[in-house]
Amino acid sequence: MSFNAPVSDQRLVLRDVVRIGELPAASDPDLVDAVLDGAAALAEGEFAPLDRIGDTVGARWDNGVVRMPEGFKAAYRSFVDGGWMGLSAPEAAGGQALPLALSAALMEDLNAANIGFALCPMLSFGAIEALERHGSDELKRDYLPKIVSGEWPATMNLTEPQAGSDVGALKTRAEPNGDGSWRIFGTKIFITYGEHDLADNIIHLVLARTPGAPEGTRGISLFLVPKVLPDGRANDLRCVSIEHKLGIHASPTCVMSYGDHGGATGWLVGPEMGGMRAMFTMMNNARLNVGLQGVGIAERATQRAVAYALDRRQSGKAIAEFPDVRRMLLRMRALTSASRALVYYAFGQLDRGLAGDPVAAMRAEVLTPLAKAWGTDVGCEVASLGIQVHGGMGFIEETGAAQHLRDARIAPIYEGTNGIQAADLVGRKLGLDGGLAFDGLIADIEAEATDPLLIALTDAVEVAAATMRARSGDDRMAGSYPFLTMCAVMVGGWLMERLAKSPDADDRVRATSAFFLSSVVPEAIGLAAAAESGAEQLYVVSAEALA
Amino acid sequence: MSFNAPVSDQRLVLRDVVRIGELPAASDPDLVDAVLDGAAALAEGEFAPLDRIGDTVGARWDNGVVRMPEGFKAAYRSFVDGGWMGLSAPEAAGGQALPLALSAALMEDLNAANIGFALCPMLSFGAIEALERHGSDELKRDYLPKIVSGEWPATMNLTEPQAGSDVGALKTRAEPNGDGSWRIFGTKIFITYGEHDLADNIIHLVLARTPGAPEGTRGISLFLVPKVLPDGRANDLRCVSIEHKLGIHASPTCVMSYGDHGGATGWLVGPEMGGMRAMFTMMNNARLNVGLQGVGIAERATQRAVAYALDRRQSGKAIAEFPDVRRMLLRMRALTSASRALVYYAFGQLDRGLAGDPVAAMRAEVLTPLAKAWGTDVGCEVASLGIQVHGGMGFIEETGAAQHLRDARIAPIYEGTNGIQAADLVGRKLGLDGGLAFDGLIADIEAEATDPLLIALTDAVEVAAATMRARSGDDRMAGSYPFLTMCAVMVGGWLMERLAKSPDADDRVRATSAFFLSSVVPEAIGLAAAAESGAEQLYVVSAEALA
Repeated sequence: MSFNAPVSDQRLVLRDVVRIGELPAASDPDLVDAVLDGAAALAEGEFAPLDRIGDTVGARWDNGVVRMPEGFKAAYRSFVDGGWMGLSAPEAAGGQALPLALSAALMEDLNAANIGFALCPMLSFGAIEALERHGSDELKRDYLPKIVSGEWPATMNLTEPQAGSDVGALKTRAEPNGDGSWRIFGTKIFITYGEHDLADNIIHLVLARTPGAPEGTRGISLFLVPKVLPDGRANDLRCVSIEHKLGIHASPTCVMSYGDHGGATGWLVGPEMGGMRAMFTMMNNARLNVGLQGVGIAERATQRAVAYALDRRQSGKAIAEFPDVRRMLLRMRALTSASRALVYYAFGQLDRGLAGDPVAAMRAEVLTPLAKAWGTDVGCEVASLGIQVHGGMGFIEETGAAQHLRDARIAPIYEGTNGIQAADLVGRKLGLDGGLAFDGLIADIEAEATDPLLIALTDAVEVAAATMRARSGDDRMAGSYPFLTMCAVMVGGWLMERLAKSPDADDRVRATSAFFLSSVVPEAIGLAAAAESGAEQLYVVSAEALA
Repeated sequence: MSFNAPVSDQRLVLRDVVRIGELPAASDPDLVDAVLDGAAALAEGEFAPLDRIGDTVGARWDNGVVRMPEGFKAAYRSFVDGGWMGLSAPEAAGGQALPLALSAALMEDLNAANIGFALCPMLSFGAIEALERHGSDELKRDYLPKIVSGEWPATMNLTEPQAGSDVGALKTRAEPNGDGSWRIFGTKIFITYGEHDLADNIIHLVLARTPGAPEGTRGISLFLVPKVLPDGRANDLRCVSIEHKLGIHASPTCVMSYGDHGGATGWLVGPEMGGMRAMFTMMNNARLNVGLQGVGIAERATQRAVAYALDRRQSGKAIAEFPDVRRMLLRMRALTSASRALVYYAFGQLDRGLAGDPVAAMRAEVLTPLAKAWGTDVGCEVASLGIQVHGGMGFIEETGAAQHLRDARIAPIYEGTNGIQAADLVGRKLGLDGGLAFDGLIADIEAEATDPLLIALTDAVEVAAATMRARSGDDRMAGSYPFLTMCAVMVGGWLMERLAKSPDADDRVRATSAFFLSSVVPEAIGLAAAAESGAEQLYVVSAEALA
């Protein structure tokens, strides 16, 4: 089924939620339209047609080489030639310095069209930011333009077999060569696009431990380790295998081995033992981008389900006319729209923060766990509803609906599991700036919200937040996930109400907003008890007793 | 990972929820224990070891022949030799006439161990009941003993390309031969175990239309069409292809063609044009059995997740000790236990109904849509949580967690989509016996429930039910799905509270019951607004506008 980028929805969100016109670089609405239209054409024309072959054939490993399915190389070339990688990269590195909120629209489209493919450029966004902020002048000179152009895609190498969510447990080590370069030794797992044949070089950003560095995250440094060295020789690194996964089959998930033959050559990004700071720069960006994966898949699944439900007839009418099918379609559309509004809004706050607004910067931090966790939960729920709308055909792989659920299911896991996002929300973001960052968001919602259910949810969030703040440790963490969902639905409801009030809103926007407020918001109120329940009930019996 | 049948949980539910001791055929606790232990040994020793090969190799079609993976034939032989197929079949046909609630424990175990395999015997349960109730003496004599022994598995043939949920649209036709037999012509799709190499014969129950029969479901008749005719010749039927599905790969989902060479020979089951009545006999049984698929997968996914979370260490401790992981594990266990209690309770009411209790028979009818829809929703949610507990490893197919979600996802679709279950609940079951069947259930819960949240949910269900009854048509259907979830959680909460009060309850039972009441029940209260929302908001915009 063809994909239609949701340009008019994106335009409305950028205008009335992000208020992108207030950002100097994007004050020209024609420019915004041109980017949206161009991204749509790229996603629809180049990425979407390869979604199915990406799933069925997938990336294939052969003795260290990873081959992408037919057509991927040419499509990637179109992406590079269009200058899309540099959309919001610094002008000094050849980018266009447009707002991240515009890159968000691009990435949503690419995710919707072909998430397994879109992961390749996605990794470079964070790398550009990390290198720009923390890299030496030499590294920036030698690598940034090629990454910004898209010619050399980048990767993030954090995870090791014993170090998943606990990054501080990593063992990869780096030894100085004395000339400013380092030798890297170690094995990394779950490396997205760690190896492939889309480009002549791949730039790996690798976390490793330097000699004498303390244990834990404090002792970690970030290194740039290119697949091909500046002198044209192959670096001492290798893709040992790729994983057989539930979904995103186009995306090679690599086991990478560094330094089997004397050490892979790399250079520090940022100061020694400053790796986590540089990595967080990449991760925050990546978390919002993963939230966009949820939005993109939700959009695609909704389009597919609506088309099927209009086409498929039972008992003399299209199944879209049956109330429960219509309810599912409306729910899919409402969740998709609300998650888009939330994630774009977060990107917009990031843009304002980068432009010097400290309040917006902190709000972006508060919004990041909501956008990542709820956006990806929405992706899974909407993909699953999409299967349900298809009935028996939804379970048949050729239909395409099932792929969306398989693809979507990774997003709540990587870039910090959604549980880690929830822990980040209640552990760190709730207290950011003495609590003002979170409370300011609530205050803005209270000032604008008019729907009684939305107001009731906001009140419930305030009560739960007060409960959380009065607690510590496990007792605060216990209800973190339902609390995060309440917060995300509150923000989504606020922005949906705002969209419905826009003079440009059409009947569809008003109908999905009304449904979100009347049906989704009260569900979130129902989570209050779980959010406030505390840890005691979780530990009444041992985990062994639950087996 | 090995599977451990949840024998002690099953025993507690059978004793204190089903109150199986009150059923004459199962008044001996030692007999109940022997069945539970035997079913556990079969599931653990014969079915579970084939779960992975069933998924990875799956059923394979070759020119009309379907070959099951290695080991399936021998394991099926063990099932037949143990007499398991006839556990609750009539003694006259060689069965043991034990309660259906005991067969439920057997099927839960087989589903948990290997759902793709368990589908084979599952189809025969309904066929036995349909044939016993509606078949002629000759058909019973010739076919029932072999189906009851398991030697000849049975199938259900309803669906056609143009007739999915709308069975009345089917076109398969039957023409009389004049000797009591009929010639069947037509194509059926989605036929589970329509062809395989586990047995010498397969007995197809096929819905078809006789000459001059009226349109719609009134004109449908049920036929028994064996793969091998009584004289040993092959019948004129053929498996044209099997589907490539998201999950349950071991189960061949067949396109069946009848009568390509002059007509497949069949015999009427029940009167001409009495097909739907006979089919409903099969379907009601099958719906509860599909509910058990959800329970079984939830059990398996929970066991796997707990084992992983105890084994996997991060930051110096097992991840099962982290609050949000523990919350997921407890939620998985609580949902599994509550759905088991609900489905077994429904089977127990069916048993009482068959023994002559009309109130119980009607309560079973009320419970059937709850058991099917919510049981299968629980299966999907728990399987998805199981992936999340595994983190990145959950997305890797070799881990096994992902298979459970792929397998679980069909259950909300087949045997009447969950949306159809919800329509059945509010359209038919809410008014059964003038509403007394539903109200009697509420009254029993109100008489026993002590938890304030459970009482609040029951009140909310009563209010929503009154709203539903005051409405008709689409307006009533609009909120049917959230209403069903509320009802199911209410019944699950009621039975969980009862279990926790049992003198045999251990800490685990009390802890999971407390979690269910404090965290899951309030979520269901949050569905009240959606349940009562009515159809207007669904049709504000056309379905086309949601694309």
